[in-house]
Amino acid sequence: MGGDYAPAEIVRGALDYLYGTEELHQVLLVGVPERIHAELAAENARESERLRIVPALQIIEMDEHPMEAFREKRDSSIVVCNQLVRKGEADAAFSAGNTGAMMVASTLVLELLEGVRRAGIAAMLPRENGGYTVVVDAGANVDCRAKHLEHFALLGSVFNEKVMGIENPRVGLLANGEEPSKGNEMTREAFVLLSALHPRINFIGNVEGNHVTENRVDVVVCDGLVGNVLLKGAEGVGRLAISILKQNMETTTDPETLSRMDAVMAQFRHQFDYSEHGGAPLLGVNGVSIIAHGRSDRRAIANGIRQAARAVQSGYLEAVRIALKETRLKQGQQE
Amino acid sequence: MGGDYAPAEIVRGALDYLYGTEELHQVLLVGVPERIHAELAAENARESERLRIVPALQIIEMDEHPMEAFREKRDSSIVVCNQLVRKGEADAAFSAGNTGAMMVASTLVLELLEGVRRAGIAAMLPRENGGYTVVVDAGANVDCRAKHLEHFALLGSVFNEKVMGIENPRVGLLANGEEPSKGNEMTREAFVLLSALHPRINFIGNVEGNHVTENRVDVVVCDGLVGNVLLKGAEGVGRLAISILKQNMETTTDPETLSRMDAVMAQFRHQFDYSEHGGAPLLGVNGVSIIAHGRSDRRAIANGIRQAARAVQSGYLEAVRIALKETRLKQGQQE
Repeated sequence: MGGDYAPAEIVRGALDYLYGTEELHQVLLVGVPERIHAELAAENARESERLRIVPALQIIEMDEHPMEAFREKRDSSIVVCNQLVRKGEADAAFSAGNTGAMMVASTLVLELLEGVRRAGIAAMLPRENGGYTVVVDAGANVDCRAKHLEHFALLGSVFNEKVMGIENPRVGLLANGEEPSKGNEMTREAFVLLSALHPRINFIGNVEGNHVTENRVDVVVCDGLVGNVLLKGAEGVGRLAISILKQNMETTTDPETLSRMDAVMAQFRHQFDYSEHGGAPLLGVNGVSIIAHGRSDRRAIANGIRQAARAVQSGYLEAVRIALKETRLKQGQQE
Repeated sequence: MGGDYAPAEIVRGALDYLYGTEELHQVLLVGVPERIHAELAAENARESERLRIVPALQIIEMDEHPMEAFREKRDSSIVVCNQLVRKGEADAAFSAGNTGAMMVASTLVLELLEGVRRAGIAAMLPRENGGYTVVVDAGANVDCRAKHLEHFALLGSVFNEKVMGIENPRVGLLANGEEPSKGNEMTREAFVLLSALHPRINFIGNVEGNHVTENRVDVVVCDGLVGNVLLKGAEGVGRLAISILKQNMETTTDPETLSRMDAVMAQFRHQFDYSEHGGAPLLGVNGVSIIAHGRSDRRAIANGIRQAARAVQSGYLEAVRIALKETRLKQGQQE
């Protein structure tokens, strides 16, 4: 029930996913049954063994206060989704709804992994020459301590390795320059903590904003305010590029020119339209929880469900638990 | 002597500026005389009343430690430039050299304006539908207090109004959401201080990273780490757009398509190549000080000198002094 185009695009995205995969996954559509039935009917589909409806009668609106919404709407799709995962009746929770409410619900229902103090949102930014750069935290925690960034580094590194298949991912700390002296007090402290995680993570030092699109780093670690500004700023510039190209296409009549510009537009959409790329996993909670962009369309939803399935199958959660335990053991020995 | 292409492009930019303006400004080229003479000779130019050489025999390299370089190289072009302004022998200092050293030299030689505790770099980002958004601070101060942001807001607003001619500029505080509750502890405190500056500044509340390119705000206020990440991130995405278009142009042979793509490329360069747009003024010092991108070419240098001249003629400094005095008086009355 969450997202700017819910439930229509959510239902369509789920159908696209099911029709397009050879895996025998089940999709549970959580929400107001009548509305979901209506959307299914509109697509000539209906409930089946692989597509079940789980009732949740309340709806958390996009602008509701996350904590209040969580407390007052226990029968909302966001809360019920997370309870299904908690009870083992689902393997992953996925929502395009109120980001804050999804964060709160996943953190409180699934709980944090042992040793983790804050969950972080991992955004995936497409970069030059293909692939993605993971940015953690992309907006969950605005006031961070160095210790939180240490966890984001570990969580992001394991996620990148297990789910995205990057061997020994390069982990960088976002700062205003590459020298270790750069950054603020908090990042300089985090620099020391991240260095001490060697060889558990492949820490390459400080990275700058432009490195994110340049395939120089795989996992970028930062506090949620900086990460959010980076992400939104990148979105803004990307949209500007798309809009300039679009304006030029509108005044073009030559078919050869248009077809070429169409090809450029497709590349731009892939690179700059972040809603295309599914969702952002919430790392640090005891389960797979994925938060999609509010303006996700059916394609983004299908991609997000695929991403959730991959995260479950990858064994990421088990690997994270081991990594956290090893790190705690090592730190215990040092103390 | 500063910048990736110094002194050649600096000298060429100065000549371009002088040939292109009807104003009778003087340009003082500060640096190693033999090298400047050689560059002038290569352009069939020489010293004249409007183009004087001021000797400075030391060179601060791009990677030197700013404070050490300032202490040890008093006869460098960066330090001598600022001394010329301090002594009233020049009206503005302009450099494409070591950013940190220029900041230190301007702050210590020109000194801070009365009432200001930190100087901030004002970066200018081109935005949709023309014009620029000013971002202060773009990298001078990584550990800021709310009070510093209050000064950046006032300085940026007066600069935008006087030098860029924007009436009653919209001042926004960079955060991870528009609601007043968004942002971190420091920005929430700054939110209160900025609100209290009404009607001296037109504070429109929190803004997000994507608003910078959307013509929704004229002056964006943030700490130097966030500002630097926003700026560099935007540069990275912009360069990616340029590189995708370039790749497509390389494999295009149809002349009509190429000419159209050329036009798009020109728009992209204007929007995304920040080195095109001259320099970033250092706001808060007692004089006009402008810092250009290290990779500035002759065009960027000429634009930067033009910008410096405009800042001097605009009466910005006097207006800032009055605004600071009024604000202090008002705050004194409230206490």
